[in-house]
Amino acid sequence: MKDVLDYLNQSRDKSRDYLNKLLSFQSVSTDASFFDQVNACADYVKDVFHEIGMQHVEVVSTKKHPVVLASYTVSEQLPTVLIYGHYDVQPADPYELWDSDPFKADYRDGYIYARGVSDDKGQFLCHILAVEAFLAVRGTLPVNVVFVIEGEEEIGSLHLEEVLRAHKSLLNADVALVSDTPMLDVGQPALCVSLRGMVYAELTVYGPSRDLHSGQYGGIIVNPIQALSQILVSLKDDEDQVSIPGFYDDVVSLNDNEMFSLNQIKAITSMTETRLKDDLGIDAFSIDDPDNFLQALWYKPTLDCNGVIGGYTQEGAKTIIPAKASAKISMRLVANQDPHKIADLFQDYVNTISPAGVRVDVDIHTLAYPAKMEQHTVYMKAASEAFEFGFGNKPYFVGEGGTIPVVASFKHVLGVDTVMMGFNCPDDAIHSPNERFLEDSFYKGIATSMCFLTKLGDD
Amino acid sequence: MKDVLDYLNQSRDKSRDYLNKLLSFQSVSTDASFFDQVNACADYVKDVFHEIGMQHVEVVSTKKHPVVLASYTVSEQLPTVLIYGHYDVQPADPYELWDSDPFKADYRDGYIYARGVSDDKGQFLCHILAVEAFLAVRGTLPVNVVFVIEGEEEIGSLHLEEVLRAHKSLLNADVALVSDTPMLDVGQPALCVSLRGMVYAELTVYGPSRDLHSGQYGGIIVNPIQALSQILVSLKDDEDQVSIPGFYDDVVSLNDNEMFSLNQIKAITSMTETRLKDDLGIDAFSIDDPDNFLQALWYKPTLDCNGVIGGYTQEGAKTIIPAKASAKISMRLVANQDPHKIADLFQDYVNTISPAGVRVDVDIHTLAYPAKMEQHTVYMKAASEAFEFGFGNKPYFVGEGGTIPVVASFKHVLGVDTVMMGFNCPDDAIHSPNERFLEDSFYKGIATSMCFLTKLGDD
Repeated sequence: MKDVLDYLNQSRDKSRDYLNKLLSFQSVSTDASFFDQVNACADYVKDVFHEIGMQHVEVVSTKKHPVVLASYTVSEQLPTVLIYGHYDVQPADPYELWDSDPFKADYRDGYIYARGVSDDKGQFLCHILAVEAFLAVRGTLPVNVVFVIEGEEEIGSLHLEEVLRAHKSLLNADVALVSDTPMLDVGQPALCVSLRGMVYAELTVYGPSRDLHSGQYGGIIVNPIQALSQILVSLKDDEDQVSIPGFYDDVVSLNDNEMFSLNQIKAITSMTETRLKDDLGIDAFSIDDPDNFLQALWYKPTLDCNGVIGGYTQEGAKTIIPAKASAKISMRLVANQDPHKIADLFQDYVNTISPAGVRVDVDIHTLAYPAKMEQHTVYMKAASEAFEFGFGNKPYFVGEGGTIPVVASFKHVLGVDTVMMGFNCPDDAIHSPNERFLEDSFYKGIATSMCFLTKLGDD
Repeated sequence: MKDVLDYLNQSRDKSRDYLNKLLSFQSVSTDASFFDQVNACADYVKDVFHEIGMQHVEVVSTKKHPVVLASYTVSEQLPTVLIYGHYDVQPADPYELWDSDPFKADYRDGYIYARGVSDDKGQFLCHILAVEAFLAVRGTLPVNVVFVIEGEEEIGSLHLEEVLRAHKSLLNADVALVSDTPMLDVGQPALCVSLRGMVYAELTVYGPSRDLHSGQYGGIIVNPIQALSQILVSLKDDEDQVSIPGFYDDVVSLNDNEMFSLNQIKAITSMTETRLKDDLGIDAFSIDDPDNFLQALWYKPTLDCNGVIGGYTQEGAKTIIPAKASAKISMRLVANQDPHKIADLFQDYVNTISPAGVRVDVDIHTLAYPAKMEQHTVYMKAASEAFEFGFGNKPYFVGEGGTIPVVASFKHVLGVDTVMMGFNCPDDAIHSPNERFLEDSFYKGIATSMCFLTKLGDD
């Protein structure tokens, strides 16, 4: 692989140029005011695929954001790797907490700072640049490759499944490769074999038909903020467990492999109770046994309120009983839980606990299945060796508390398992201000991808 | 009084001009971005006093918003009436719910629509225009008059007491007159003899030092929105009573006069349970016995959340555990409750109920004493006769759920009781979008004020 590696080392400026340009698009998929930028970013990804010499490039429109497909077939004898990524990003607000422009890559202290640099632009670009190197140096690839780069991951991959279904033959692959999960720590890679699913709901509580003077009406009116608070509190019990009846019914316990890996990680993780507390600036967790936090994060479902608003929220004092109040709620699900069923349970329960005197609307934004992978496959072995080559260490098998809905879709629609091989670190502040990615990991990620493709081609 | 009445009827255009100009100032006292407009409004009130011929006019600066003072002394033998008003207004947001510009008087269907037209610009202007008529027609007044028009009523009259103290001799009056309380209904006046006091507090719950990915961290972190909801729910019990220990300790029961008046009002009020439900678009109240809602509103203390915000509140879905969440809370107090004591009880209670894993800050914005007046005085008699003259009906004695802190201050600092003689109606949407004032009541208010001053001069 020396030829390709040498090329990679000599073309770092070019790699950075691609990355900087990709990060400059404000491709926030959840907010309509950014939709032009989302489209422009998809167009740029398409241009990149043309530039590096992919055989077939296609921008597939959906009802919301386009999916960019690109394929290169060397031979039907070789395995085909489907490489997935997403060019959309989380909103950057609150902007005032960023130390640099979130949409202009800032290189400082060994890190690259920008919205989306870890999640997921910097990561999927590693694979594109590995393919670019093969094509530039050798004019061919060690395996067949097809890219699926979508623009709706941060809003639940709403239209990806229909695109997968419509392009089944183009996407006929042996394995999927996703880099959207973190390593355990700097230099310590991880292969993710478990993802949580999600139900994202919005609750709106309607009270009086207009904001009321809290003096003239206070004492007889059911206050929508109070009613919303009651509902939020009723969703969890004193032990921070979800109170929705039936919520835990389908949760299965860990198998031996998973328990073994979990204990391995527990023994070596630097994400200790003390370090987490320091990093997050908190003095207590919501669970009694913080030693078990990895199990809680990877293998237990949970519910969190992501946002709440109601009444007067500007500076100073305004004395009103507001006409309405609303909250955004995400439920993270684990293997064997069905998001459709959980959404129904949630709606039923909210209906039963809503107090008189107000009207409560439930709007479901997102439904995503959880996913679980086998640990001992030829693809996991190749990924493990590639990590050892790229980062100098064997990976551990880990779970992930977040949601990558496409991994379940790849299984359901295309029948392929996914290798989740991410290059960023847990403290890279994805979804937060000052998101970052180690510059060194960016180059190592390209080398790891190159090695993974080579190993698969050798089999 | 025919001379002055004729003058009033002939000068309605001029009265409207004064009103329109006064309403055009965006004198929102709570929001720093409007402070220039607050100052400009005070200046305009000063100009009006000069124009109508007051002997002494003074704009008193404070640490925040100025107070405008104006006096006219006819003779030491005559009684002196202190007339109070406030030129500041509540914020106009949400702007999109207004049918016309909140800061441009819109005359339609017999109403004048604008922020502050009822609360309180339109009302205190009635008294200024009554004085203007006397001075224009007769060159003198039936009594001595001193005006106190402040700019901080909507934020708790923070600096009014120190202005009253510093100008005690100028403000040496026999009675205070305040028009900042509603009539019972169109055509049915009321004299308010009871006001609720207030403690306005802001709670901020701090969790992790940054917004966290709800997938990566959900299941182990105490969510600030959840913690805030728990605190809000703990502030009231299942019967909607305030749960703060000691909160009700100093509440006294109604005396015979108050109970008699309350039963009188109950028997004739058009604010019935059904009409209130229709007007407010709700199907239930927070109290079991809606027949007693007047007692709940006037003579019982309460607590309401006026605003709440935390996490992601824009369009769509963002999956975070927020770093903080906050709520604004007003407590309405009744006679004999001490706002300082209640504020302390609130802070102590919040400290005891705050969950582990978060930090809770309490900020007290406003403290205002409740007030109670005697019903049978020479001033109440004059006010009653003036109402009968201006509006054709005798007033009832009523309470008021809102807070006018200055009424307590007039008693404490200047030793005078207050006649609360308001001209607007309960459905005039003060503090809400589309605040309004019957145009007819505006002219009747001027005539009523004219009659009140005449009656006091006759005694």
